[in-house]
Amino acid sequence: MSEGSIAGLDLHLPLSGTRPARSLEDAIRSLVSTGALPVGARLPAARALAADLGVARNTVADVYARLAAEGWLEARVGAGTWVAAFPAAASQAGTRPAAAPPFELRGGLVDASDFAFSAWSALARQTLAELPGTAFSYPPTAGVVALRQSLATYLARTRGVAVGPDNVVVGTGFGDLLSLVCRALRGRGARRIAVEEYGHERHRRIIAATGLEAVALPVDADGAVIEQLEGADAAAVVLTPAHQFPTGVPLSAARRRAVVDWARRTDALVLEDDYDGEFRYDRRSIGALQALAPDQVVYLGTASKALAPAVGLAWAVVPPAWRAEVLSQREAGGAAAAGIHQHVLARFIDAFAYDRAVRRRRAEFRTRRELLEGLLAERVPSASLHGLAAGLQCLVRLPADVREEAVVDAAARRGVAVQGLAEFRLGDGVAPAGIVVGYGAPSPARAERGLELFVEALEAAVEGR
Amino acid sequence: MSEGSIAGLDLHLPLSGTRPARSLEDAIRSLVSTGALPVGARLPAARALAADLGVARNTVADVYARLAAEGWLEARVGAGTWVAAFPAAASQAGTRPAAAPPFELRGGLVDASDFAFSAWSALARQTLAELPGTAFSYPPTAGVVALRQSLATYLARTRGVAVGPDNVVVGTGFGDLLSLVCRALRGRGARRIAVEEYGHERHRRIIAATGLEAVALPVDADGAVIEQLEGADAAAVVLTPAHQFPTGVPLSAARRRAVVDWARRTDALVLEDDYDGEFRYDRRSIGALQALAPDQVVYLGTASKALAPAVGLAWAVVPPAWRAEVLSQREAGGAAAAGIHQHVLARFIDAFAYDRAVRRRRAEFRTRRELLEGLLAERVPSASLHGLAAGLQCLVRLPADVREEAVVDAAARRGVAVQGLAEFRLGDGVAPAGIVVGYGAPSPARAERGLELFVEALEAAVEGR
Repeated sequence: MSEGSIAGLDLHLPLSGTRPARSLEDAIRSLVSTGALPVGARLPAARALAADLGVARNTVADVYARLAAEGWLEARVGAGTWVAAFPAAASQAGTRPAAAPPFELRGGLVDASDFAFSAWSALARQTLAELPGTAFSYPPTAGVVALRQSLATYLARTRGVAVGPDNVVVGTGFGDLLSLVCRALRGRGARRIAVEEYGHERHRRIIAATGLEAVALPVDADGAVIEQLEGADAAAVVLTPAHQFPTGVPLSAARRRAVVDWARRTDALVLEDDYDGEFRYDRRSIGALQALAPDQVVYLGTASKALAPAVGLAWAVVPPAWRAEVLSQREAGGAAAAGIHQHVLARFIDAFAYDRAVRRRRAEFRTRRELLEGLLAERVPSASLHGLAAGLQCLVRLPADVREEAVVDAAARRGVAVQGLAEFRLGDGVAPAGIVVGYGAPSPARAERGLELFVEALEAAVEGR
Repeated sequence: MSEGSIAGLDLHLPLSGTRPARSLEDAIRSLVSTGALPVGARLPAARALAADLGVARNTVADVYARLAAEGWLEARVGAGTWVAAFPAAASQAGTRPAAAPPFELRGGLVDASDFAFSAWSALARQTLAELPGTAFSYPPTAGVVALRQSLATYLARTRGVAVGPDNVVVGTGFGDLLSLVCRALRGRGARRIAVEEYGHERHRRIIAATGLEAVALPVDADGAVIEQLEGADAAAVVLTPAHQFPTGVPLSAARRRAVVDWARRTDALVLEDDYDGEFRYDRRSIGALQALAPDQVVYLGTASKALAPAVGLAWAVVPPAWRAEVLSQREAGGAAAAGIHQHVLARFIDAFAYDRAVRRRRAEFRTRRELLEGLLAERVPSASLHGLAAGLQCLVRLPADVREEAVVDAAARRGVAVQGLAEFRLGDGVAPAGIVVGYGAPSPARAERGLELFVEALEAAVEGR
């Protein structure tokens, strides 16, 4: 056994003479899980560490690659290797679990590690140099004019949204805009809002914080059961028409017409959450519901899925009759999205870099979805994959005798985080057993292994192991 | 008279043969005010336009410089010349008044046109290249850890704030954090909050939107009259202790102790708005009130004054007992500041670029304040300049027989926007006549002329002209 220290980090690595790779791997894993190597700490170049330790360069490079695939480290060509943070729960809390890092396959998350940072960076630099000085002042309440113009053009072109720059309101994220529109509804005296029976618990908390009561609308094979809006006494409804979250069912054409009809008759508002409308794999996406009734529908989109949540930008297309109330709530709420980022995103869209980012992710996610489909058909034919070939997640329905908890636990034992459908349900009703698999969540380096491990866990749970 | 077109813009400029400079100046002014040359439109290089028009290069350069000094155009070395937007009101509404652009001297605004964009740009580029991929995901609710660490160090060093990274909560602006803390107060059952009798109407609207009732606290020569908090039945008070906005009075040492004592006795919260605590010209700033009672004071600061509002970042230092409630309201409100900007600001602070930006603005604002002081003493000795030698604005008290409206109108006729003290007052009480002069608002190129024009207007109003 020899001992070396990581160059510049002064960390001691006890290496076994016979199995240097294995002992180096174990040592780094242990240093990370104890926090001795903290999140974000940069590792020495493989060549330098190999020289320090007296091992072959490839030995170190292989160890780095394996640890990156497991999620302990992150590497980017030209930028080096560093200790990874976890995508969601762990980085939110700012802590790091001591156990092995999970493969993140929870629904609603999207990997941002392949963010087009160099394109963004170049445009940011150009934008900052060219903007007039006054552009660094407070952005207009509705958002920077250039961004509203870019978004109007983009949304009309890609999602068929009926929109001009004056209809667009920029926010810091979907939740920000959901809160804003709900406050505008409350400001006009609304008391109840319908939501799909499955969805994000966080969105329901945001709605509740505005003083609105959320009432559940069942979801069936045609999407949300619009008929049940009659008598629900709701001033608005939040829908995910393109790809119901998280079941993946699209809203049928008949239901689309029905909800527009309901909104017109009762002067209600439809909040169209188009969170993954850009990601459709089998054929061209159908257009936004908003185009059917621009006076009754608030269209909501975000840069978090196609670019990255850290961009901190989202948009609402608001009917003219609601614009003043929404902007007044924006003023009264104080929050506004960073003006600089608004200008950069405008140029990013105008340069078609946003389209390219969508296309790249779409290709990546399609591959993952096909992999999962193939693995399931081969290894667990009794489970079935549901939901449109679109978006960032799908629903795996379980055979009748298999409980969600059994699958979630089996996955957790393999370091894979997934959630049962019941976790997305509003209220205490009984949901058919299913597992939501967020295949957009893991980084490219880890997606394949994560999906394999999930299917292995599912297989074990189905076989009662 | 000859006619030329602005290169690439296809605009026709009728030029007088005898006074080409004057007619070019008039023509550009007219094209801008009619909107034919819209905000942000780039003008051809002086050399190119001179060649097109058949005049000397210096003729065009001089015209550009004069129009920039008047605020019609903006120029930056190496970046060109373009049609300027107005700093505040006009750009908020997205429209451009047809009249001559005002010299902006309203209180509470700060010029952002000298934003350190090249330093920011370089750090942004470096940050984007070096950040681990997971940093592009959703930022932690309280804010990016690196920024909270940088801010804790910076605030302790420059403002004496008693703070660790866990006390910091990042927001998109002062208004965002004010709303957040007020919602936390409401969440714990608070009904009333005291505010200084003078302040921003916008802040009062933000408070009212959270359901809290704002009650006015008088302001005298020692700052807010803390004694009147007894019996006010308020759960909290918002103060500007370093430099009362907009009167400029600092909170006396005795009152500082009194408000801390009141907060401890009644378990109330003090919201310390340190909006311009970094800008003190006569001697070193006194430290933040927060240090006297970190368990009772929420310290609030922003990057909008030292850097630019378009950065979209502000910070609160929150007592441990309030942290969970504030973060829970943050989650429920949906809004979060852009993660990328948080990382860039962290590096900007760590590289001391933030200190440099503060020093540069401080030197610039000191000069402006001294200029105003000198002009007043020389030309309108019956008016007096009040408020500590600090911050971004001061108060000019008027002689007994001069009405605020007369000065505001006389200034407006000269293209100068100022506001009377009465506009900042909560409620209908009578305020002593004064004019708030925001000397931080105009760009460096226009500050001197704007202040001169204001003093000229004041002189005219005092002399009853």
